[in-house]
Amino acid sequence: MQISPLVDNLISSLRYLPGVGPKSAQRMALYLLEKNREAANLIAHSIKEAVENVKKCSLCRNLTEEEICSICADSSRDSSIICVLENPADLFAIESSSTFKGLYFVLYGKISPLAGIGPEDLGLDFLFKKLQNPYVKEVILATNPTVEGETTAHYIHQKILPLNLKVTRLAQGMPLGGELEHTDGLTLARAISSRKDFLYD
Amino acid sequence: MQISPLVDNLISSLRYLPGVGPKSAQRMALYLLEKNREAANLIAHSIKEAVENVKKCSLCRNLTEEEICSICADSSRDSSIICVLENPADLFAIESSSTFKGLYFVLYGKISPLAGIGPEDLGLDFLFKKLQNPYVKEVILATNPTVEGETTAHYIHQKILPLNLKVTRLAQGMPLGGELEHTDGLTLARAISSRKDFLYD
Repeated sequence: MQISPLVDNLISSLRYLPGVGPKSAQRMALYLLEKNREAANLIAHSIKEAVENVKKCSLCRNLTEEEICSICADSSRDSSIICVLENPADLFAIESSSTFKGLYFVLYGKISPLAGIGPEDLGLDFLFKKLQNPYVKEVILATNPTVEGETTAHYIHQKILPLNLKVTRLAQGMPLGGELEHTDGLTLARAISSRKDFLYD
Repeated sequence: MQISPLVDNLISSLRYLPGVGPKSAQRMALYLLEKNREAANLIAHSIKEAVENVKKCSLCRNLTEEEICSICADSSRDSSIICVLENPADLFAIESSSTFKGLYFVLYGKISPLAGIGPEDLGLDFLFKKLQNPYVKEVILATNPTVEGETTAHYIHQKILPLNLKVTRLAQGMPLGGELEHTDGLTLARAISSRKDFLYD
């Protein structure tokens, strides 16, 4: 339905946002135009600024507008541990947990033959070069516990065996606050097979 | 958490969109930056264009970039019926149903003493002037079937009594495809009290 070309354009363009269907896009467009044109300008401006300036950190491939991201540039962080992640969203998640003080490497994907993504698409050459630095002692392969994430972790593990690094993977088991009744079988099977002595730590 | 100021700005600004919380805003920002910078530019551009050019139709207050919106400018529409609505979204909804061929008037709100919205905020003077034109025969008061929508309809009805127009309201009852079991009591009560002879039309 064509009411106003510019309003229609706005609605269609908002549909590019993930998770936004036709109804939400219309609601967003009308909200911006009727109630909050200031926010609309702010959104347009921040998109433009980010698209023009945000690129990959030259050390860890995290998103940044600088040559080196704020994490790599932070000298208080432990450069002997590198956490390898699939996406910047995973990095945000780990940073939010405030428990990791090492550095990161972002793959931007995982090995997926079906999607035609091979090792060369994930910057692995760059990762291997980075890991050859003598200050690196441990690599956490924190790709997701999915088939493709596991495959990627295994592939990287094989490749870096000669470097004699400590290679770890995130623990798998029951999520905290989870209920056995609502936990899937694969997770339960892993939680059982990886069970720990009571009062383990 | 501060990762990159521009990415953080983008995430915060996307949170102004209705229905977008911190997680969705982050997902949207990372999607635009990682996967679809072209769509990002498109969104920024269409917001800017719409904010700069979209205003209210001088006849019906619908959103348009012209002086007169495409509906008011369409000479094939029946100018003897005016449908009064709370919001442009309601106009979109009625247009999508493709059953109404008259003209509209958009209030941009409803009388709400609690929110401090009185008749003067809804362009009612402008509506009354419009309804005094001799070509107008019927007014559909299509404000929502809520307390405030009803109040607004009653207020307008009282005010336009002297004009001797046919004044109607949208039918209320069971939504099509609805089930009695899942219909609220107020709607059922209305559906019963407004029941029609079988094979009514």
